[in-house]
Amino acid sequence: MELPNCDTLLLERIEGVLHITLNRPDCRNAMSLAMVTELRRVLLAVRDDHGVRALVLRGAGGHFCAGGDIRDMAAARASGGEAYRELNRAFGSLLEQAQALPQVLLVVLEGAVLGGGLGLACVSDVAIAAQDAQFGLPETSLGVLPAQIAPFVVARIGLTQARRLALTAARFDAGEALRLGLVHFSEAAGAALQRRLDETLAQIRRCAPGATARTKALLLASGQEPLGRLLDDAAEQFAEAVTGAEGVEGTLAFMQKRKPAWAQ
Amino acid sequence: MELPNCDTLLLERIEGVLHITLNRPDCRNAMSLAMVTELRRVLLAVRDDHGVRALVLRGAGGHFCAGGDIRDMAAARASGGEAYRELNRAFGSLLEQAQALPQVLLVVLEGAVLGGGLGLACVSDVAIAAQDAQFGLPETSLGVLPAQIAPFVVARIGLTQARRLALTAARFDAGEALRLGLVHFSEAAGAALQRRLDETLAQIRRCAPGATARTKALLLASGQEPLGRLLDDAAEQFAEAVTGAEGVEGTLAFMQKRKPAWAQ
Amino acid sequence: MELPNCDTLLLERIEGVLHITLNRPDCRNAMSLAMVTELRRVLLAVRDDHGVRALVLRGAGGHFCAGGDIRDMAAARASGGEAYRELNRAFGSLLEQAQALPQVLLVVLEGAVLGGGLGLACVSDVAIAAQDAQFGLPETSLGVLPAQIAPFVVARIGLTQARRLALTAARFDAGEALRLGLVHFSEAAGAALQRRLDETLAQIRRCAPGATARTKALLLASGQEPLGRLLDDAAEQFAEAVTGAEGVEGTLAFMQKRKPAWAQ
Repeated sequence: MELPNCDTLLLERIEGVLHITLNRPDCRNAMSLAMVTELRRVLLAVRDDHGVRALVLRGAGGHFCAGGDIRDMAAARASGGEAYRELNRAFGSLLEQAQALPQVLLVVLEGAVLGGGLGLACVSDVAIAAQDAQFGLPETSLGVLPAQIAPFVVARIGLTQARRLALTAARFDAGEALRLGLVHFSEAAGAALQRRLDETLAQIRRCAPGATARTKALLLASGQEPLGRLLDDAAEQFAEAVTGAEGVEGTLAFMQKRKPAWAQ
Repeated sequence: MELPNCDTLLLERIEGVLHITLNRPDCRNAMSLAMVTELRRVLLAVRDDHGVRALVLRGAGGHFCAGGDIRDMAAARASGGEAYRELNRAFGSLLEQAQALPQVLLVVLEGAVLGGGLGLACVSDVAIAAQDAQFGLPETSLGVLPAQIAPFVVARIGLTQARRLALTAARFDAGEALRLGLVHFSEAAGAALQRRLDETLAQIRRCAPGATARTKALLLASGQEPLGRLLDDAAEQFAEAVTGAEGVEGTLAFMQKRKPAWAQ
Repeated sequence: MELPNCDTLLLERIEGVLHITLNRPDCRNAMSLAMVTELRRVLLAVRDDHGVRALVLRGAGGHFCAGGDIRDMAAARASGGEAYRELNRAFGSLLEQAQALPQVLLVVLEGAVLGGGLGLACVSDVAIAAQDAQFGLPETSLGVLPAQIAPFVVARIGLTQARRLALTAARFDAGEALRLGLVHFSEAAGAALQRRLDETLAQIRRCAPGATARTKALLLASGQEPLGRLLDDAAEQFAEAVTGAEGVEGTLAFMQKRKPAWAQ
């Protein structure tokens, strides 16, 4: 895989994990159109790279992402309504693409996790928050809508909680984010946060990459397709997996009480 | 807006908030057909009134609502099965109408929150319970069904919890209602409850009314419509909002570090 | 009702409750094709028996069910991919059938609740876990997929939690199962567990069997069918229930302050 050159992102590949750092710390990693475009290129490049098992997304400078970028908004104002529409929709396309990623997507959430930043958290497979992170959907208090984000928030935490958060623009902390099911873990910033990330990556490495990708696709399709057809397809996939290289290696390793090849 | 005259409801409009009190305290505000009809008229009247930002629904005499009215049931018995069907469906129409309300709907839940009362709680945007409130779906223990209520309970707290509650007719308290995600807050009756309500109304006043209404519609459509179309429509609405009066005022106020006009 | 003879299950009928015990304790009640077939026969036999109000499913020997049976997998290997597909799909059919059961399905979860065992827990109406039960979806760590199980896990606990559990193959305890909403109760093994089961069965006996079955069907249809049609149908069913034998008896008993006939 050839990773694109990026101005707004730091990319580092370590042992099958691609670490992506949103790198505009001067504006709390506000999501600019340039950043959206670069993230989409990276996700596209990594999508078919079977050497990458997981992606870790975080922000530089103590913040995850404070939402949309004001300067892009000002530029769009000069160009008229159509520019706003495209700017907004591009972020939704990023969320769709991140959601559909075959690899496991982890997010590490520190500092501000607002608006679009909260949207990104909603498409992760594992979300680990620092205890002092601050979450919120401030859009309606600014006279606008959490337009591309809303459907992903509803899918993440359900309508009941999403409606209160979006309609009151309330801020909330990591403890509440955990209680609402927005994140999976809340840890003290620093060593504890890093330990949880390392532990989760170790768990993911014990899982077969191909089986993981197919399982993720199946989970995402659940509730979207008729159940009977989903189960028929799943049975086909099960038969392919169990007779395929991973299934044979997994079964052998289990009987021989050793780690499978992918977990070395 | 001209509010209808009501026998079963108290109505009071204060600073852009319509306070509706179910007022049949002698029968714990049991939901009679007259009350359903009057509530529907009020919601219809308020629907297009942009001066009303939020509605607060509560019950007189220490109870929210103890469910359907026995006397209406007796009257329906005299008229035959068709009358029961209409009586039941009218309540479902009230729930549909309350769910679709463009304004923010808050409920204050004290005492009995049973059957239809629990159904009403399920369509609120913010639900604040008194710690000593009592919740339950007693219908199956009376030989009948939580017919119009069931889909709203599933939408509110999910199938897993809804099935246990409905199939055991279990009573539960505000702490469990909070844990299940049926309500957003559980507070000591009296001052703490009132403080939470005031604080939530203050948050709602900081949000732009038009953006709030459009955001609510978007949240309700999420999961009901194909995602791509939803995001396309949302981008259109975003562009309209940001170039509209609220978006312009919100952006200006943000840059000028002052409150926007709607929050004065 | 004539119950089928079973090699892998113990069946006992006590006061309108059918107790089913998975009885292969030597392999922690691993789900063999024979067991799937016998369970499906039992559910089919009990389906139209109005004398059975509830089913209680548990495992012999301190474990609920440790997942799929290795020996069946080996036999399928000899027969080729098609045999795997059928073996897998048969388990999904069992889950569909258990989900659609008109009676109340309770599960008592002790020891290992893994893979297919966790899948069975996901279609119960009331799930009671022993505090020391161990839950998990180990499939991806074995190179295969939680194929038939995944859609039921998503329906049970939502996509957000399901994706982390399935993609990390993490083990978790009853406390977390309760927090995730996978189970309704976590109790100390032994007397406390039994007390919770007895109490829940007593609640179920207070509910009318016919109303319970119709309510369960309505809950399962919620979110699957257009809301307006669902509410129209529900109103019809309400009218039938209230004018039917259970509704008449329930109303009379309520007015006469006595237990209805079904609760004797």
